[in-house]
Amino acid sequence: MKIIIIGATGTLGKAIVEELGTRHEIVRAGRSGADVQVDITSLDSVKAMYAHVGAVDAVICAAGNVHFGALTDITPGQYEIGLKDKLMGQVNLVLAGQQIINDGGSFTLISGVLSDDPIRWGSSASMVNAAIDAFAKAAAIELPRGIRINSVSPTVFTESMDKYGAFFRGFKPVAVADAALAFAKSVEGAQTGKTFVVL
Amino acid sequence: MKIIIIGATGTLGKAIVEELGTRHEIVRAGRSGADVQVDITSLDSVKAMYAHVGAVDAVICAAGNVHFGALTDITPGQYEIGLKDKLMGQVNLVLAGQQIINDGGSFTLISGVLSDDPIRWGSSASMVNAAIDAFAKAAAIELPRGIRINSVSPTVFTESMDKYGAFFRGFKPVAVADAALAFAKSVEGAQTGKTFVVL
Repeated sequence: MKIIIIGATGTLGKAIVEELGTRHEIVRAGRSGADVQVDITSLDSVKAMYAHVGAVDAVICAAGNVHFGALTDITPGQYEIGLKDKLMGQVNLVLAGQQIINDGGSFTLISGVLSDDPIRWGSSASMVNAAIDAFAKAAAIELPRGIRINSVSPTVFTESMDKYGAFFRGFKPVAVADAALAFAKSVEGAQTGKTFVVL
Repeated sequence: MKIIIIGATGTLGKAIVEELGTRHEIVRAGRSGADVQVDITSLDSVKAMYAHVGAVDAVICAAGNVHFGALTDITPGQYEIGLKDKLMGQVNLVLAGQQIINDGGSFTLISGVLSDDPIRWGSSASMVNAAIDAFAKAAAIELPRGIRINSVSPTVFTESMDKYGAFFRGFKPVAVADAALAFAKSVEGAQTGKTFVVL
């Protein structure tokens, strides 16, 4: 398969490249330092990325920012970051991608455990992650030509505990390689409209 | 209790006023035709509403628009409608309301069944409804002073089947009065971070 991975140079993206790269042709996309540059918050940038890469069999996203902040301080503009980037950025990948993806292709989006298991400062992430899972479930019933869509919802990564551990006290981290497996299940399996939870 | 109901003049809002109005002091808010005018998409308008009404014991929202459209046609701008209105409009009610609501007060937001049970043309509603439920769950653990927050997620209303029945084939509608009961359970009960599903 020809697979484009957006966010391919990040912690998760690298692990997905490692998991799928031995069996498939991978195109690495990202904000910088990848094979193809893309800003997923811009539908035009996403369209340009697809025009450059051509038809693919799978689109994987491992990118998306959200703002973390206390409910008492957080502003609508800070919620907007997650809505524009992690949520609508990934929706943009599907809206434009449904035109260029091959029959029977798949989209796999990234959400996260906070949709269901909230932490302090995480209300924006909770909102965005749940929205992504529900979007995947809803889009699955409308995509034509046997195209599938799933999301992967991992807990915090072992590799990120130095940075995020203080926010995720009591959470058992998973190796990023285990989250990468869920992307392989989505791409190489046959399910659609599913959230693969990685705990 | 003093309860402000946003969207009080709509089908659902009227039923909530009927359910809670015999036992509580109700302030009816809405875009027009209510006691107090408010545009929930504007944080300033929400703040002005609260400044006018003063402290309340409960904030109920029965308002919020989303766009319905086929996944193949829908644009980022059309998703934006639901994100700005039904999602961030209700978030605005909480962000500003947490400052003025009485100790032990409650917020009750409206989401809907499409978060979990999608229909064609409903990807925006699915996304937004799931985001609202997750936001309520996350905000519940950060709200101070014993303030609670829940969401109510009803299926299609019997009273709306003339208008929406064709989109909801096979869905068993509920009377809007039954959805109003869930708002009473949220306001007069003690649970928090909960989605009351009304099927």
